[in-house]
Amino acid sequence: LSHQDLSQLTAAGEEIERASFEFIDRMVQVSHLSQEEWEVARRVIHTTGDFEFKDLLRFATHATSAGVAAIEAGAHIITDVTMIKAGLSPGRLNHFNLKVHTPLSDPAVLAAARELGTTRSRIAMHHAAQQGLLDGSIIAIGNAPTALLSVCDLIKSGAVRPALVIGVPVGFIAAAESKERLCQMTEVPFISVSGYKGGSTIAVAILHALMKIAGRRTP
Amino acid sequence: LSHQDLSQLTAAGEEIERASFEFIDRMVQVSHLSQEEWEVARRVIHTTGDFEFKDLLRFATHATSAGVAAIEAGAHIITDVTMIKAGLSPGRLNHFNLKVHTPLSDPAVLAAARELGTTRSRIAMHHAAQQGLLDGSIIAIGNAPTALLSVCDLIKSGAVRPALVIGVPVGFIAAAESKERLCQMTEVPFISVSGYKGGSTIAVAILHALMKIAGRRTP
Repeated sequence: LSHQDLSQLTAAGEEIERASFEFIDRMVQVSHLSQEEWEVARRVIHTTGDFEFKDLLRFATHATSAGVAAIEAGAHIITDVTMIKAGLSPGRLNHFNLKVHTPLSDPAVLAAARELGTTRSRIAMHHAAQQGLLDGSIIAIGNAPTALLSVCDLIKSGAVRPALVIGVPVGFIAAAESKERLCQMTEVPFISVSGYKGGSTIAVAILHALMKIAGRRTP
Repeated sequence: LSHQDLSQLTAAGEEIERASFEFIDRMVQVSHLSQEEWEVARRVIHTTGDFEFKDLLRFATHATSAGVAAIEAGAHIITDVTMIKAGLSPGRLNHFNLKVHTPLSDPAVLAAARELGTTRSRIAMHHAAQQGLLDGSIIAIGNAPTALLSVCDLIKSGAVRPALVIGVPVGFIAAAESKERLCQMTEVPFISVSGYKGGSTIAVAILHALMKIAGRRTP
């Protein structure tokens, strides 16, 4: 990434990030992750202050490569909540010509959810599928298990084929089950987290790590 | 809060939140927190999937009351990053006539940070102080230890007097120290977290919990 692309970080900010990564490297020994997987895990630890993520993160084989390729191809990024969109660096998104969509914010989605007595999150992903946004996309889910379950259904049925699903919804009601379902899928590369933990900051960290790797590859 | 104010949550979404809180209540026994402090802690656990926060959260005496009173008074909310702003419910903010400011996003702040070779976060809070935004405000910091340290300096010097400081920056470089400094202050009510953990989702959870309590008090 050029200096302009990183314009949000001043030199002092970059130095803090570098020192943080060095600290994590000193604190943690990891043998079960590839170099790229570790870069993702390290950024999640950096974002949460929680070392447990080194053991909680789940990667499908070649998931990081699939994510990096999608970023290089300028894929659509579909998120369940606007917090993920707000957390992504505009400079990095522009560098790769990435557009972020949050179908949940569409008024049609709220109206449909109320009418059907379900959550906006469940409707939102079907809405995005109908608009043709999901094929080849990176789907990043930090909050809504129903959104992740909908995505799994859409993929299983053959209706859509995303490039990567980052499925890290947080919580105690259906979140762990939805992530477990994702991790059993063979149709799509995924990055996920075991158990209750997750959230939008974790989805952002995973996306930023993949963009960082992509930035090294494409000069 | 009226149904309109909670328009972002459909009935199904509200039911999931209620079930999640019940689950947490069953899982955790807490004796060292007041009822209102527990409501804050429970929402942080709900937001992170991390039960450790029950022991990590730090509350100044009457901090929750101070936060609720500031919300009822329509205080300015000052955040270090836009992710906090994006995570706050527009309906709840409107209900209490709360305005959210993120001085970091001001182009003048980036220019000043580069010129002085420091982080935007440090400049940002001085900028907000000069604009008169900090007195009586709720300051919520989820990422930048330098922003929290600046706020502590401004308060110590008598330059500003916020109603509440929510200081939960995450990370390994200076974050724990900045939170420790906040927790030693007697000049201002605070809510904070011990150690490395923190982040914007935690700041949002604390603010939402305080708004929920305020909503119960003012019919």
